[in-house]
Amino acid sequence: MDVTILDRHNYHTFVPLLYQVATAGLEPEEIAQPIRRILRDVPNVRFRLDTVTGVDLDRRAVITDAGEVRYDYLVLAAGSATNYFGQDLAQVTSALRDLDDAERLRDQVLGTFEAASAEEDHSRRRQLMTLIVVGGGPTGVELAGALAELQRHVLPHDYPDLDLSCARILLLEATDRILPGMPKALQDKAQAKLSELGVEIRFGAPVADADADGVTLRGGERIAAGAVVWVAGMRAPPLADVVPTPKGVGGRLVVEKTLQLPDRPGVYAIGDMAHVGGLNAQPHPMLAPVAIQQGNLVAESILRSLAGKRPKRFIYRDRGTMVTIGRNAAVAHIFGLRLSGFIAWLIWLTVHLVWLIGFRNRMLVLVNWAWNYLTYDRGVRLIRRASSRQHVSNGDEEAP
Amino acid sequence: MDVTILDRHNYHTFVPLLYQVATAGLEPEEIAQPIRRILRDVPNVRFRLDTVTGVDLDRRAVITDAGEVRYDYLVLAAGSATNYFGQDLAQVTSALRDLDDAERLRDQVLGTFEAASAEEDHSRRRQLMTLIVVGGGPTGVELAGALAELQRHVLPHDYPDLDLSCARILLLEATDRILPGMPKALQDKAQAKLSELGVEIRFGAPVADADADGVTLRGGERIAAGAVVWVAGMRAPPLADVVPTPKGVGGRLVVEKTLQLPDRPGVYAIGDMAHVGGLNAQPHPMLAPVAIQQGNLVAESILRSLAGKRPKRFIYRDRGTMVTIGRNAAVAHIFGLRLSGFIAWLIWLTVHLVWLIGFRNRMLVLVNWAWNYLTYDRGVRLIRRASSRQHVSNGDEEAP
Repeated sequence: MDVTILDRHNYHTFVPLLYQVATAGLEPEEIAQPIRRILRDVPNVRFRLDTVTGVDLDRRAVITDAGEVRYDYLVLAAGSATNYFGQDLAQVTSALRDLDDAERLRDQVLGTFEAASAEEDHSRRRQLMTLIVVGGGPTGVELAGALAELQRHVLPHDYPDLDLSCARILLLEATDRILPGMPKALQDKAQAKLSELGVEIRFGAPVADADADGVTLRGGERIAAGAVVWVAGMRAPPLADVVPTPKGVGGRLVVEKTLQLPDRPGVYAIGDMAHVGGLNAQPHPMLAPVAIQQGNLVAESILRSLAGKRPKRFIYRDRGTMVTIGRNAAVAHIFGLRLSGFIAWLIWLTVHLVWLIGFRNRMLVLVNWAWNYLTYDRGVRLIRRASSRQHVSNGDEEAP
Repeated sequence: MDVTILDRHNYHTFVPLLYQVATAGLEPEEIAQPIRRILRDVPNVRFRLDTVTGVDLDRRAVITDAGEVRYDYLVLAAGSATNYFGQDLAQVTSALRDLDDAERLRDQVLGTFEAASAEEDHSRRRQLMTLIVVGGGPTGVELAGALAELQRHVLPHDYPDLDLSCARILLLEATDRILPGMPKALQDKAQAKLSELGVEIRFGAPVADADADGVTLRGGERIAAGAVVWVAGMRAPPLADVVPTPKGVGGRLVVEKTLQLPDRPGVYAIGDMAHVGGLNAQPHPMLAPVAIQQGNLVAESILRSLAGKRPKRFIYRDRGTMVTIGRNAAVAHIFGLRLSGFIAWLIWLTVHLVWLIGFRNRMLVLVNWAWNYLTYDRGVRLIRRASSRQHVSNGDEEAP
């Protein structure tokens, strides 16, 4: 059996640590691994760096920017994209879905403080030092906590002239709670810890509009800010839109309980882009454990199919979720246990270090974590891709 | 005394290790350090992230994109830029002068092998796997050696389908020797080691023209290639062009032996952008030790000047140079000694680790070096900023 992996990047990204890249705690490359490196010892798998632009289900062909790839079996596993819920906010807010997002967000956050340090006007300075995180899910909570620690522990040393008591981090949540899906007791613990770090949480605060200078809430209230991060939800990626098959919630592809497309037994969709069981079924959460379990099942199903057997149905085994908030602080709901504080934080660290791909990456992340923990520092405070200021004069320049 | 540092980047780059970033051995961020972090404990130094666009020597003002900064004393230390010797090659060749260059070159080298693996045509595939390094100075030698090890030890595992015996690395040198300034015996040792690694060195091969598909030598010979790296020389940065003062070799600012601009006792120029002693004097090599010694002298001179004393003259104390070629292989001419092989390589490693700024960076580089040495691997094989192929369809996209 020959397996071909098509991806528009030559690397796999460990998404759960993106927020640490965005807050200058890790080098971007440390949470990524070259796909060819991962597959080095698997002889029947080939990799192609291609962008998939469409799928012809009748002719059994994947259309890429470099031509067609014919298939007997196809597994669609292109992940998810940021959900702006129909609003046109991609250009005016920052997202946190891939390595480029994370690096741009880091540059933007550091850039607002550089701009604030050069700003004479008090209210404008205050605005620049206000960071808004839209969405109280796991990503929003982890990001808000890490930003708060950056503002509290690191930036005061970098900007001794700035009055950082003006700096604010707002977490805007449309509903009345953060971390949906977590037990109420852990939601409360996470909320208390965020408040302790200085994060202002606003419940019932749906965002109606956003621009480069802040957000407008649905009630009409205007909040000025230096940066707005949109982590309010995910939807199916653009690739899902071009697959001619019924769509479920958030544009996800409707698949049978066997993860096959309806009437297309050779085509599977898994992970964030699949809505299992059709429109009447509750979609699975867009989490890595779901995708991993589905990936394993599809591999088994295709092997069964080649042996003349029928594919099995997918049943999600929820082993729990965990969210880190800051130093020594996390909440974890795993194997039925509700953990918080230092012990949950230690489990979070261990699990993420183990799941990270590559021994070298683990070593580098461990060095950074130890450094960040012992020194209260964040070493990667580089502004690499400045967009607000053009650098035109001193030094050698090329278009990017 | 108040000191203001103006820079268009918020970080300092350790230039000697750029070639390791370009060959996927180090994360780019590991050889950079935030300037505010470096200056954290120096109370009378302020940093401004500004691009300098001009200098008004009469009004004693530096012009930046964010306004003017007045000075009593001015030190111009903007480094150097790639020297294309009047040719228009910046758009068609890669350079290796800053972190962006290094990351782009890494992306380009890896991208040519991805393209080769998808290429059906044999001669086109062979072209893509040919890398040309123009210039046999220290940067060209170190880069060619590291590229050879990447081709020899790493890429065969990544591309089992590719016949890497077709892969070539050409080092083109206009004169009849590499590493000018080094003793002849060490030049020969370096040349032998490069040949052993499979690098083809062409002497007396000045490049007349280059484009995206290769180079044309002055004699008319055409060499097709997948990537051309131009490290044939350095000149003064564009900032030097806008300072109204006499220019020396390569557009460098002519300064007195005291490093002061002629008739401008309050203005100093140091490092790569200064030509000490005027047009009749041999310019100093564009090396970090020169710049560091000049920086120390200027600091002393300004303090002397404030105390009513006269500035001292600059005398370069040449403690030697060293160049690494590959595993266990370097040449070093230090303190009058001529060293090569393993001992020179160990000294090179130690010196560069010590000179790298930041304990955290040293730890991370050490982990990478140990990993690279023990596994013959290069971990950072990520294509982050692909330019040859646009990624338009699957996934969330924003303009960079």
